[in-house]
Amino acid sequence: MDKYLKNLLINAKTDSASIANASSLSKNEFLLHLEKQLMSNKTKIISENKKDLSLAKKNDLDPAFIDRLVINGKTLDSMCEGLRNIHSLNDPIGNIENINVRPNGLKIGKMRVPLGVILIIYESRPNVTIDVAALAVKSGNSVILRGGSEALHSNLFLGKLIQKALQLAKLPPNAVQIVNKTDRSLVADLITVKDYIDVIIPRGGKGLIKNISDNAKIPVIKHLDGNCHIYVDEFASINQAINIVENSKTQRYGTCNTLESLVVHKSIADQFLKKIASKFKKHKVEIRGCNETCKILTNITKATSEDFFEEYLAPIISIKIVHSLKAGIDFINKHSSKHTEAIITENYTHAQTFLKLIDSSSVMVNTSTRFADGFEYGLGAEVGISTDKFHARGPVGLEGLTSEKYIVYGEGQTRS
Amino acid sequence: MDKYLKNLLINAKTDSASIANASSLSKNEFLLHLEKQLMSNKTKIISENKKDLSLAKKNDLDPAFIDRLVINGKTLDSMCEGLRNIHSLNDPIGNIENINVRPNGLKIGKMRVPLGVILIIYESRPNVTIDVAALAVKSGNSVILRGGSEALHSNLFLGKLIQKALQLAKLPPNAVQIVNKTDRSLVADLITVKDYIDVIIPRGGKGLIKNISDNAKIPVIKHLDGNCHIYVDEFASINQAINIVENSKTQRYGTCNTLESLVVHKSIADQFLKKIASKFKKHKVEIRGCNETCKILTNITKATSEDFFEEYLAPIISIKIVHSLKAGIDFINKHSSKHTEAIITENYTHAQTFLKLIDSSSVMVNTSTRFADGFEYGLGAEVGISTDKFHARGPVGLEGLTSEKYIVYGEGQTRS
Repeated sequence: MDKYLKNLLINAKTDSASIANASSLSKNEFLLHLEKQLMSNKTKIISENKKDLSLAKKNDLDPAFIDRLVINGKTLDSMCEGLRNIHSLNDPIGNIENINVRPNGLKIGKMRVPLGVILIIYESRPNVTIDVAALAVKSGNSVILRGGSEALHSNLFLGKLIQKALQLAKLPPNAVQIVNKTDRSLVADLITVKDYIDVIIPRGGKGLIKNISDNAKIPVIKHLDGNCHIYVDEFASINQAINIVENSKTQRYGTCNTLESLVVHKSIADQFLKKIASKFKKHKVEIRGCNETCKILTNITKATSEDFFEEYLAPIISIKIVHSLKAGIDFINKHSSKHTEAIITENYTHAQTFLKLIDSSSVMVNTSTRFADGFEYGLGAEVGISTDKFHARGPVGLEGLTSEKYIVYGEGQTRS
Repeated sequence: MDKYLKNLLINAKTDSASIANASSLSKNEFLLHLEKQLMSNKTKIISENKKDLSLAKKNDLDPAFIDRLVINGKTLDSMCEGLRNIHSLNDPIGNIENINVRPNGLKIGKMRVPLGVILIIYESRPNVTIDVAALAVKSGNSVILRGGSEALHSNLFLGKLIQKALQLAKLPPNAVQIVNKTDRSLVADLITVKDYIDVIIPRGGKGLIKNISDNAKIPVIKHLDGNCHIYVDEFASINQAINIVENSKTQRYGTCNTLESLVVHKSIADQFLKKIASKFKKHKVEIRGCNETCKILTNITKATSEDFFEEYLAPIISIKIVHSLKAGIDFINKHSSKHTEAIITENYTHAQTFLKLIDSSSVMVNTSTRFADGFEYGLGAEVGISTDKFHARGPVGLEGLTSEKYIVYGEGQTRS
């Protein structure tokens, strides 16, 4: 293995023991120092970021990419807000839950502990550097950050500020490390070293994530797709359905919790679809409908069977009409990517049935799928979203970066 | 893929949706029916088991192996006790935890759900067939059981009784399936089909488990070793230390929670080691000690550095003398397999420090390491023990076979 990498891994592992046992006080001090560092180095951060931006423009990278890469006053403010949020969260480490007394008098409970060393692999979004460093430190983990090469200047400078803040809070300096080499072969090595890394969180496009989860020898927290559904029940309030569907689809097109497929009960379809279609027309959202939808809405594209599996990330939506709640639930469980699904209904039993039977990481009643993220759920920030069921599911905040060990208080008991 | 296997996987997946939503009432009925089936088919179970036993004897399998394979009246009684225990546990599925109201009025909580389809790969211990089927069904999972080929007659007949009990409880018949082919290539296929199986739990020797976890493309819940330690602090009660160490080492030699390595503070070593050595002599336990130990106990073997990493599973113990609590903790964290470690002390701060700083799945004060199992911890039974930190850690019972999805109760909220 590359000597640089080996060194990085040993440092991460060594410092993971001391960050695991750091006090909440020092971890919170780190967050405040980091906020101060960001504020007092505003100009320098923006000028380092400009180096990345001019290279990106020179290389003709697309506007959405550049949009995610840019650091301006607003981005910095929101980084700082994230730090203050994480500062205000309870530190989960060391909490002891559910101590039960066994018949022989043993007291058995569970103590929350960090996972150990976390590897984050992400595309060129420098805000992730700050969010993830903050969440990792607060949850007592050591973290290795491998960001996109296009953000290297920004990330390395942010890394220096993080180091400074760790030092001021008297925390181990290698609790947060930025990988400063950008060769792809490093990533291939990093995702297989199971003696050094406890969990990998890839953030970025589907290709990146699929590649990492296919080849990693270490557990991965991830989601590939966000093919999110709303089911408009026969007992929906039409106005509420219009507002929520419009918001879920059009508030932002490129996010993983954006609505991609609409499922409508036939008895409300005629009335609802005409109204929502005029909203979509206003937003220039293309509709691709099933046969029955095409009978109600003329001038729309007919959906193929692939359409219903598609995460468009664009102003396009698929629509399917169903004849019962059960058919709606079955359709969604078959086509969804297990990210976020919502029902719009005033019927109590339908709401409860949907919550129970939909097999997704977030299931909602009467609200926008756009709320499915760590910040909106009160986790402070999120390190990622998981659509798997193992370990963490849904938006992952501090708790998703922890584990629990059993602790047993005895008084001399022996086993017979 | 083999047609038999494909069919098995499709059946498991299909029935996982209905077992996930079965009522606690039907799942508990299944457990009672299964107990009745075991009781009323005692003779037939034992005669099927005899077929396996006579083949095993013919093939000269070792006595410990045959001991684990045998089903007799006592084994059956303990299978039934396990079923009654699991019957008495609360069903975790559908429970909703920690509903918090967000500033915008959204109510956000987590609902406990099954993992989906579980694959258990185990050696020839037919009691595992019953324990695991019961835990899987109670936690709403579909399970595929692939037992050792030497127990095939026993397992297939137990499988029939499980099917009968599922049918009587009106539960889906393929919620529990026994793999009736024993070719090894089937296992190689099974551990990579991530679209069908959500988690693999291998139970058996280290070779089996290592092979599965190295090659699986699906999350694995496992432990490889149980190199368990007891640290006898300078403030230990000598009598308590003697009783607990004797029990932890000699109550059974072949289990993963058996004590393998003893760490003793130097100021108590002289007094304690002479007493424990005479106990070990009585039990014919061989002592392998560090240099300092060899100065106190003559006529013992000198431990090599490998000894301190060894899980003996035999009447052998390694002993290390340390000069401080911190040195003891560092020694244990370096050598342990993260299974179970205990401290014997009357000092409050030492007890708390040990609980905090030892990085193992179970950490104990003043009691025997032999208590580290699901039954003793009140989990009813265990499907395995995990020494990893991801998802489940320590003995794994019902909760380890579940996940949580976010549920969101809205009243028309949209995101701005």
